[in-house]
Amino acid sequence: MGQLLVVGTMAFDAIETPFAKSDKVLGGAATFISLAASHYQVDTGIVSVVGDDFPDEYLQLFRDRNINLDGVEIVQGGKTFFWSGRYHNDMNTRDTLVTELNTLADFDPKVPASFRSAEVVMLGNLAPAVQLSVLDQMESRPAFVVMDTMNYWIENTPEDLKEIMKKVDVIALNDEEARQLTGEYSLVRAAEGIHKMGPRYVVIKKGEHGALLFHDKKVFFAPALPLEEVFDPTGAGDTFAGGFAGYLAQSENKSFDNLKNAVIHGSNLASFCVERLGTERMENLQREEIQERLKNFHELTQFNIELQ
Amino acid sequence: MGQLLVVGTMAFDAIETPFAKSDKVLGGAATFISLAASHYQVDTGIVSVVGDDFPDEYLQLFRDRNINLDGVEIVQGGKTFFWSGRYHNDMNTRDTLVTELNTLADFDPKVPASFRSAEVVMLGNLAPAVQLSVLDQMESRPAFVVMDTMNYWIENTPEDLKEIMKKVDVIALNDEEARQLTGEYSLVRAAEGIHKMGPRYVVIKKGEHGALLFHDKKVFFAPALPLEEVFDPTGAGDTFAGGFAGYLAQSENKSFDNLKNAVIHGSNLASFCVERLGTERMENLQREEIQERLKNFHELTQFNIELQ
Repeated sequence: MGQLLVVGTMAFDAIETPFAKSDKVLGGAATFISLAASHYQVDTGIVSVVGDDFPDEYLQLFRDRNINLDGVEIVQGGKTFFWSGRYHNDMNTRDTLVTELNTLADFDPKVPASFRSAEVVMLGNLAPAVQLSVLDQMESRPAFVVMDTMNYWIENTPEDLKEIMKKVDVIALNDEEARQLTGEYSLVRAAEGIHKMGPRYVVIKKGEHGALLFHDKKVFFAPALPLEEVFDPTGAGDTFAGGFAGYLAQSENKSFDNLKNAVIHGSNLASFCVERLGTERMENLQREEIQERLKNFHELTQFNIELQ
Repeated sequence: MGQLLVVGTMAFDAIETPFAKSDKVLGGAATFISLAASHYQVDTGIVSVVGDDFPDEYLQLFRDRNINLDGVEIVQGGKTFFWSGRYHNDMNTRDTLVTELNTLADFDPKVPASFRSAEVVMLGNLAPAVQLSVLDQMESRPAFVVMDTMNYWIENTPEDLKEIMKKVDVIALNDEEARQLTGEYSLVRAAEGIHKMGPRYVVIKKGEHGALLFHDKKVFFAPALPLEEVFDPTGAGDTFAGGFAGYLAQSENKSFDNLKNAVIHGSNLASFCVERLGTERMENLQREEIQERLKNFHELTQFNIELQ
């Protein structure tokens, strides 16, 4: 079974949407990524940090899904990273209300020996220096490295960001981040600019408007599944990344055609994620539901035009 | 050869974009629709009105593309409908600077005898009363009726709009109009609401974010082709409608599966339209270019996942 190493936050989230307001619930990039990946035949391990306020039942939730936590540092007397946000009525935009870094502020990632030769590494949104440290600890260059980032690192640590971007195969970022990183409004041009910075594959996430995969003058597009209701978009981007990386870690085939499938798998899982609050849907999702909805994606996008 | 009857405006447009500013150029819904449809094997006729300021060279441009103008009234001493707009930097939103109805204010459409049994009727964006009058003049219920509309008619002539919506097979409108018409933010729910008003097929156009086709609990999505540069979005929605209706008028097959293809053909032509100012690209477009770009749409969207 292929190995997938995930680095990213494990967090408490407090979420307000037009429909709901949560107390502190389980969140964080590594959380959503690994829960999504756990729906594939892959041996997933997390590198992250939490405080001793992180409940045992949350840790157990990961273990129950066969997610290895050897790389998760529990800081005694420390507090877990906390994020709070409020979504606007369109559910596409949100304000961050609170960010408390807590134990994340001094995070020094340690990759456990058992995952130092993982084939696929998913670098969730964290300081580029942390992402670099994780890659440096690998025994050899992994077969496939995927990274995420955000506007904060584009603005504040551009040199570190350039460094890590040279070492990855895929970068997945959202449309605004792609524009900010390159100064190009056109996503086609932005992707060209990002290719030149290193990644062979560029995934631009457009939220409810789907995702684009660029590679070598080729482009593939996966729509988001049109839903009657979006309950909570939190974690959709990370769930997409987790489905993408999990599917690729399960598969031997890393061709562009199979990356297309990975983008569909990521979109498929993200469509479930937004149906419930936080991680709820990812925890109870069944294999049959995943398969059934892949058929919906097929019907949604496939056509049969005679080409001449 | 199948017949397609198009009703809509023929106009002068003056367009400002971040890249260009035009004098008065050829525009109007019927113009873009019929030029797009003229790329299919179909006998297209327009019902519209212009003033005697409408240049002969414009009329000749339609005739050169075998578009029948018997239904175009030329009002002596009258002025042609004029629209002027300015696009914002994102090219997705625009302000209307000037709307001069002129001869359009008293437009009483007359369907020429030679088109009263057209199989496909495309009711471009105009007062619902005008759309109703055109349908009433048909000898029998056409095989397929497609309509467009806009916020102005939703707000000001809701009763007439309800009336015409009961008599069409397809309504094509943009996302904001769909939301306004139904009070539903979710496009899935908006489409359900619109189905109940009459149309069996609902096409929701999302501009650069593509188009959705809804029918009987089924949904199909076509992306817009990612482009390096959008020069002028004017007429893209009407060009989409013209490609959609033109392809359907050419084809015997009016199944949902073939309507999917029609949506792709519409998106394909719209992707050319926005590359140049006004109607320029639609006038010089070659058959080979259309076929080549259909292949781009195929590569952009088609994948090969094993379904279980």
